[in-house]
Amino acid sequence: MNKIIVFMTDFGLDDGAISSMEGVVYSVDFDLNVRHLTHNIPPFNIFDASYRLHQAIYYWPEETTFVCVVDPGVGSERRSIVAKTTSNQYIVTPDNGTLTHVAANIGIEEVRVIEEKTNRLKDSELSYTFFGRDVYSYTGARLASNTISFEEVGPLLKDDIVLLDLYGCQEIENGIKGQVDILDVRYGSLWTSIPYDDFKKCGFEIGDNVLVEIFNNDKKVYSQVIEYGKSFADVDINEPLLYMNSTYNMAIALNQGNFSKANGIGVGKGWIITLTKV
Amino acid sequence: MNKIIVFMTDFGLDDGAISSMEGVVYSVDFDLNVRHLTHNIPPFNIFDASYRLHQAIYYWPEETTFVCVVDPGVGSERRSIVAKTTSNQYIVTPDNGTLTHVAANIGIEEVRVIEEKTNRLKDSELSYTFFGRDVYSYTGARLASNTISFEEVGPLLKDDIVLLDLYGCQEIENGIKGQVDILDVRYGSLWTSIPYDDFKKCGFEIGDNVLVEIFNNDKKVYSQVIEYGKSFADVDINEPLLYMNSTYNMAIALNQGNFSKANGIGVGKGWIITLTKV
Amino acid sequence: MNKIIVFMTDFGLDDGAISSMEGVVYSVDFDLNVRHLTHNIPPFNIFDASYRLHQAIYYWPEETTFVCVVDPGVGSERRSIVAKTTSNQYIVTPDNGTLTHVAANIGIEEVRVIEEKTNRLKDSELSYTFFGRDVYSYTGARLASNTISFEEVGPLLKDDIVLLDLYGCQEIENGIKGQVDILDVRYGSLWTSIPYDDFKKCGFEIGDNVLVEIFNNDKKVYSQVIEYGKSFADVDINEPLLYMNSTYNMAIALNQGNFSKANGIGVGKGWIITLTKV
Repeated sequence: MNKIIVFMTDFGLDDGAISSMEGVVYSVDFDLNVRHLTHNIPPFNIFDASYRLHQAIYYWPEETTFVCVVDPGVGSERRSIVAKTTSNQYIVTPDNGTLTHVAANIGIEEVRVIEEKTNRLKDSELSYTFFGRDVYSYTGARLASNTISFEEVGPLLKDDIVLLDLYGCQEIENGIKGQVDILDVRYGSLWTSIPYDDFKKCGFEIGDNVLVEIFNNDKKVYSQVIEYGKSFADVDINEPLLYMNSTYNMAIALNQGNFSKANGIGVGKGWIITLTKV
Repeated sequence: MNKIIVFMTDFGLDDGAISSMEGVVYSVDFDLNVRHLTHNIPPFNIFDASYRLHQAIYYWPEETTFVCVVDPGVGSERRSIVAKTTSNQYIVTPDNGTLTHVAANIGIEEVRVIEEKTNRLKDSELSYTFFGRDVYSYTGARLASNTISFEEVGPLLKDDIVLLDLYGCQEIENGIKGQVDILDVRYGSLWTSIPYDDFKKCGFEIGDNVLVEIFNNDKKVYSQVIEYGKSFADVDINEPLLYMNSTYNMAIALNQGNFSKANGIGVGKGWIITLTKV
Repeated sequence: MNKIIVFMTDFGLDDGAISSMEGVVYSVDFDLNVRHLTHNIPPFNIFDASYRLHQAIYYWPEETTFVCVVDPGVGSERRSIVAKTTSNQYIVTPDNGTLTHVAANIGIEEVRVIEEKTNRLKDSELSYTFFGRDVYSYTGARLASNTISFEEVGPLLKDDIVLLDLYGCQEIENGIKGQVDILDVRYGSLWTSIPYDDFKKCGFEIGDNVLVEIFNNDKKVYSQVIEYGKSFADVDINEPLLYMNSTYNMAIALNQGNFSKANGIGVGKGWIITLTKV
């Protein structure tokens, strides 16, 4: 293990929750390097958690441990697990779909169920609402510091992990169709479920004009011909652009503007986008 | 000392203030491990600072140094102190009530007044508005790195530290009464001043239905019978729940909702809650 | 190099972007110490980036590496550079004005253009919208870890770096004139472009009453006589104060209030302030 432990939650940064998790980690081993992916996952939003985890994990070295806690079912019967990826990284998380994008794009090699009798912060048995601190941080820290082996986390999971449905993409006449998955939050750009490779196979080339149509529950809410460029500066300020984003999926932006706000476009189930040749 | 230094302020994370404090620390010693409890304490809110410090410090190892700067009186005659807790941790802070919850629940062993002639960043004498950087970070870093001993901080405080009034709780007929102290900000749950142990002594059991009444300056603003459960998933989505929170006090939540917003409930002085058997 | 690498961006902390940058850094060297100046620079605001960088860098030790990415021209022909300051610190950044305040107040010793053929994350050639990860983090990490020397960044810049215009200050009859440069965001205090030293040369003394006039595009929007004090607590709560701020420039605050909001005062071009003796 490389002694790095990366946290992601929907707890926000306004109170003492994250710091108590860090305190648990440093009580296990002073030499661990705690990093933070984000704590601003929208509350209870497992899809976003899954997406952000995959967005970041790709760039981390082998043997990094992730502790990912978006846990609307805390205290229920949902399982607590540790997954080992085919990229030799570890993810401590409730088994609720958080692993979906990693499973689809990187791969899960082995999953173990956390044995809470041995892997729970001392004297925390009464606490039912903060597994992130009492079980996940504690287990993640012990794993990342080699205090326990992966095997000592608990028994192998016998059935499948929970996975969310992903929309993916499909070819249509003269183009391709996908979902608006998520926003590049800070800039309001639309990140779609259409991978660059699939888009390219349709024969689009940099500089092409592309008809972009966006639907909300089958109602067309946007229709415009947009340039397919390399980067924002390829178009004038406040002009729209179709481009490949930093996760190698197709995306739509306004150069130095906010496409989502300007056009009232949302994300997730029911928000469909088509890209067609003109 | 364990070389860990934990910051908490109301400075936010939008400018260069926190980074200049970190720069001061790393100018003292490259090997210090700077962590951040939160910098989003509501501006000037000493009660919240005291609460969040106590919420987190409990989970940190001995010999950790905390630098806690919510300092509406910066530049006034308020004293600058370092407290050693009975848990063998150190807190650098203005003497303004920030130590209240720690003093009540953990205990303060010894307090020293910072001798600013020796414990101030070089050439910062003209600066009167950023003690967090010029005095507290500098002193905290020198203490955490063993550059100075606790004794070298300055002389023992001869009188008492400033403490805020805490509401606590009191038994009432068939139940218990307390204050709505603070929110679990991200989720809008109400955290009360009623400790689990006191609540339990009244004879409540998991699964009980409990009459929850909330008053704002003696006017009843909420009254409902709520299930006392272990965790949010014990009730349906958007249903209210009475539970023991992660600081071992009684709390009220809406499962996957925001109780405070949904019911217009605030916190602090004048917001009283009663829990009664039905 | 001291192995410390400090990030500043306008990317926010809501997604996986910053974590993917950190991942790139730790893939280069586990022993680097990644710190964060701020990621909440207002989107595309190069002036604020320049200001915040200077606000913080002054307090960091020699041989610290800064990676500063506010990059509205990402993917365009704007150059990617590394500057060495006269204070022996390094700044990796697009050449777009981000170095303005550091150049004016600290000094730039030498600038090199990043040779992207050798200083780009492996297999990232297709990516055109995230130089912060693919080029700047990677180059910063290799420089901070001594994997490459400053010379190996690339060739010396032959012409000048891009610099923004700074307003500065000018003497007027019985006083001094400057610009409202930026806010102390969290508290709404106005930070002006008038250095304390220039203000002092006009003969003002602590305790003086000073006529403060603020103009928005030549229209007077505020005019009041204010006390010049050392710190906020010199005036009553919610009273205005003229003071020297923590960057040693003149500033205006409401004690425990928000001057900017209370008086509708903005910042930047066209927001002029005069301080005159009464």
